[in-house]
Amino acid sequence: MTYAVHINIMPLKELLDPQGKAVQSGLSNLGLKNIQNVRIGKHVVLRIEADSENRAKEIAEEASRKLLANQVMEYFEITVAPEV
Amino acid sequence: MTYAVHINIMPLKELLDPQGKAVQSGLSNLGLKNIQNVRIGKHVVLRIEADSENRAKEIAEEASRKLLANQVMEYFEITVAPEV
Repeated sequence: MTYAVHINIMPLKELLDPQGKAVQSGLSNLGLKNIQNVRIGKHVVLRIEADSENRAKEIAEEASRKLLANQVMEYFEITVAPEV
Repeated sequence: MTYAVHINIMPLKELLDPQGKAVQSGLSNLGLKNIQNVRIGKHVVLRIEADSENRAKEIAEEASRKLLANQVMEYFEITVAPEV
């Protein structure tokens, strides 16, 4: 079966996010001053062919650990859904 | 009230995603061959101070249109949740 997998890769909460800070001050300059705590990461969408939802999640975890995320600076969250 | 807003900014489905293609062949070289259709975008998390969930979503839309997304090449999806 094919699963649609979404992975969010975000900078660790303990770390500063200079890109997010820059965007926040950009938004503030545009008049959007009630926005705070901007953090920017990656959103990866992939299709995984697997026997079960759990197996698809394992494959996504392996992909995240081996290639997508740098775990020194980032954490990842995975959601799996059967493809419509 | 403060809302936690998540914005996914992805390349338009009609466009090629060379970054996604590169990641897909990288994963394939690592032995993860049952992964397809890799697409990579941005995931932005922000806190918005607003009177209602709808108002928070409007602010997030304005931020996406004015600064975060390039609508010639990207589309965005917004989810709003009251902050815990």
